[in-house]
Amino acid sequence: MDKFQFHAPTRIVFGKATQEQVGTLCKEYGAHKVLVHFGGHSAEKSGLLELVCHKLQEAGLTYVLLGGVVPNPRLSKVLEGVKLCQEQGVDFILAVGGGSVIDSAKGIAYGVANPGHLWDYYSGEKKITAALPLGAVLTIAAAGSEMSNCSVLTNEDGWLKRGLSTPFGYCCFAIMNPELTYTLPPYQTASGCVDIMVHTLERYFTAPTTQELDIVDRIAEDLLKNVMRNALILKNNPQNYAARAEIMWCGTLSHNDTTGDRNYGDWSCHQLEHELSGKWDIAHGAGLAAVWGSWARYVYRENVSRFTQLAVNVLNVPNNFRNQEAVALEGIAALEGFFKQIDMPTSISQLNINLTEEDIQELAYKCSFIGKRTIGQFKKLDQTDMAAIYRAAK
Amino acid sequence: MDKFQFHAPTRIVFGKATQEQVGTLCKEYGAHKVLVHFGGHSAEKSGLLELVCHKLQEAGLTYVLLGGVVPNPRLSKVLEGVKLCQEQGVDFILAVGGGSVIDSAKGIAYGVANPGHLWDYYSGEKKITAALPLGAVLTIAAAGSEMSNCSVLTNEDGWLKRGLSTPFGYCCFAIMNPELTYTLPPYQTASGCVDIMVHTLERYFTAPTTQELDIVDRIAEDLLKNVMRNALILKNNPQNYAARAEIMWCGTLSHNDTTGDRNYGDWSCHQLEHELSGKWDIAHGAGLAAVWGSWARYVYRENVSRFTQLAVNVLNVPNNFRNQEAVALEGIAALEGFFKQIDMPTSISQLNINLTEEDIQELAYKCSFIGKRTIGQFKKLDQTDMAAIYRAAK
Repeated sequence: MDKFQFHAPTRIVFGKATQEQVGTLCKEYGAHKVLVHFGGHSAEKSGLLELVCHKLQEAGLTYVLLGGVVPNPRLSKVLEGVKLCQEQGVDFILAVGGGSVIDSAKGIAYGVANPGHLWDYYSGEKKITAALPLGAVLTIAAAGSEMSNCSVLTNEDGWLKRGLSTPFGYCCFAIMNPELTYTLPPYQTASGCVDIMVHTLERYFTAPTTQELDIVDRIAEDLLKNVMRNALILKNNPQNYAARAEIMWCGTLSHNDTTGDRNYGDWSCHQLEHELSGKWDIAHGAGLAAVWGSWARYVYRENVSRFTQLAVNVLNVPNNFRNQEAVALEGIAALEGFFKQIDMPTSISQLNINLTEEDIQELAYKCSFIGKRTIGQFKKLDQTDMAAIYRAAK
Repeated sequence: MDKFQFHAPTRIVFGKATQEQVGTLCKEYGAHKVLVHFGGHSAEKSGLLELVCHKLQEAGLTYVLLGGVVPNPRLSKVLEGVKLCQEQGVDFILAVGGGSVIDSAKGIAYGVANPGHLWDYYSGEKKITAALPLGAVLTIAAAGSEMSNCSVLTNEDGWLKRGLSTPFGYCCFAIMNPELTYTLPPYQTASGCVDIMVHTLERYFTAPTTQELDIVDRIAEDLLKNVMRNALILKNNPQNYAARAEIMWCGTLSHNDTTGDRNYGDWSCHQLEHELSGKWDIAHGAGLAAVWGSWARYVYRENVSRFTQLAVNVLNVPNNFRNQEAVALEGIAALEGFFKQIDMPTSISQLNINLTEEDIQELAYKCSFIGKRTIGQFKKLDQTDMAAIYRAAK
C-alpha cells in the first residue's frame, strides 16, 4: 500500500483477573468521578459490576451508574448519559460490556465535550473536536470498539444507524479478560466471530488498484483462519480459555488496523447490514453473515484474483490455475458453509425477516442516503446495486 | 499467554512523500522550537534534511540542528543535545535517521525532563518520570525504535551499552517512507533485516511455561518468512519499493509487541550482542547473526518443540515426528544458512574480531553485571553460560 496510517494508542491489559486493575487504571488516566456505563443484568449477575465499583472506591474515586444499553445502542440512552455526566460533574467514562456499551460510552464522551445536537455529528454535519477520556472492561469479543476509534449509534427517530470514527474515539485503556466472555450465549459468540471476520474481510477487499503489503495480507489470512478454528472449539466448549483468548485478541486486531487501514476498506457489507439491524434490531454479526455471500457473488468479477486468494489461503480450496473464477466461487461457498457450521444465517429469511420488494427499496433508499451516496471500494455500489444485493440475500 | 500488555501509541504515517507532512505533524503535537537530530552526511546529501527544515519553517516552527550521531549512539552526544535543548528552549525533538538517531533523541528527551545524571537512569538506579515529546522521520528499517519505547545508549566510560524502556519512550509520530531507505548499503540493509528478525525471535522464545496465543505465533512466523523473502529481493534490487516497504513495516511490527509482549521475551542474544558492539562498535544486526546460532544450540533442549516449530513453520524443514530434535537442529542450521545467504556472519571471527579467552571472560563479566544478573527467559543464563556461548560463537 503506498500510503496508510496506523494509530492504535489504547493500552491493552489482557489476561485473567485484569479487571482488578480497573481502579488504578482509571486513576492513572486522570479520573475523579467516573460514569460506569453498562448493559443488561449480566454484568450485575456475574458480580463484575460490584467488583468494578469496589475497585474504583479503593482507588479513591467516586462514580455514578448508568445501565440499560441495548444491542444496536440508541441515541436516547446516550443523551441520558450526557445529561447525567453534566449534572454530576463526571470526568471519565468507563464502559463495562461489549461493543454496544463502548459505542454508547463514546457517544456520551462526545456529547459532553461538543456543543449542539449530538446526532449532527453522527450524521456528518458537524465535526467532533474533543471527548471525555474513556476506558473499557470488555465482556464481549466482537466489535473491536475497545481499540478502534469507531462507534455506531441508532437514532430511534427514523431508525437510522450511523457510524462515526474520530481521532478522539480511542479508549485510554481496555481491560480484556477472556473469562469475562465465558457466559456469552452460543448465538452471540458466533455472531461476534462473524463480526470479527468481516472487520478483516472489509479491509481485505480494497479497491483493485490499492497496493497492499504482503505482511498485512498474511496477518489478515491468519486471523481469519484462527477465528474459524476457535469459533468451532467454542461451539462445543464455551469455557475454553485458550479459544476465548484467541477470539478476544483477534477481535481487537481485526479492527485496530493491524489487518489493514480502514480507510481503504470496502465496508459495503457493514453499510448494508446497518440498515437491517437499524430496522429489525438483529445481531450485527448475524446480519453480516446473511448478506456477505450475496455481496461477494455480486462483486467478485471486479478482481477475481482477490477472491481466489481468499479461497486458497484461508478456506483451503485447492487452487486451479486454469479456472480461477471457479476457485473464487468455491471460496465464497466455503465461507458460507462455515457460517452455517456455527449456526449463522446465510440469507435474510434465516433472520426471520420476510423481505418484501417494498422493504428492499426502502433499505436501498436509506443505505444510499436517499440516492446521494455510493458505498464500497472493491466495487462502488449505487442504490440499484444495493437493492440487487438485498434481493439476492433475501 | 495469560497476561500481556500491548501499548503502541505512536501514530504511523507510511508511504511515499510522507516526509512532506513533517512540519504539520510537529505542530500538531505541540512543537514550537524543534531540535532536528540526525546522523552523518546521508541525510544532508539526499536533501532530506533541507526538506525537513523547510517544512518546519513552513509550519511556522523554529529549529536547531544537531548531527553527528554514530551507530551504537553515545552518551556524550546525548549530553551535548540536552545542553543545547536547555540553552535554546527546545520543546520538541525530531529524529531524522535510523534507530541510533531515534535512540539518541530519546536519551535527549529524557535528559531534558529528568533531574541529575542521565546515565543513572540507563544503569537502572533512577526511574524516568517524563520526556520531551518526540517525532521521527525513519531512514533505516531495523531497530523498531520508531514505535517501541526502547532506547539503547553506549557510555564511552567503560564502553557500557545499556537499554532503557519506559512509558515515556514512545514517539508521538513516525514518518515512514520506504524510498528513504533506498540508499542504505547492502551490509546495513542485511544487518537491519537480521535485527528485525531477532526482535521477533527474542519474543518467540519465551519461558517454556508461558502460554502463547496462536495468533501471535502465526504473525511472528509470517513476519520472519516475509523478512527473509524480501531481504533476498533487496540483495539484488535495493530500490525495489515493495520489498523496502515490506521490510520497513515488518521492522515496526517486530518491535511494537504485535509479535509478543517484550516482557516475556528471551533477549539473551541482544544482551550478548550489546557487549560485542559496545566494545568493538560492530553493526548490531551483524553481531546478532554472529551469536544467534550458538545461543540456539546452547539452549534448544529446554524446549525442543519450540525450535521444531520454528524449523517447520518458518524454515520449511520437513517435520519428522520420530525425531523432533533433528528437526530443531536442522532449523537452526537453516536460519544460519539464510544469514550466510545475505552475507551476514555466523561467528564472531567473521566480524574480524579475534576473540581471546580473556575477551570471553571480560564480555561475560560485563554482560552478567559483574556476576550479579542472569539473562534469558527461555533458559536463564549465568556468567558461565554466557562465556560458553561466546566461546561457541568464536
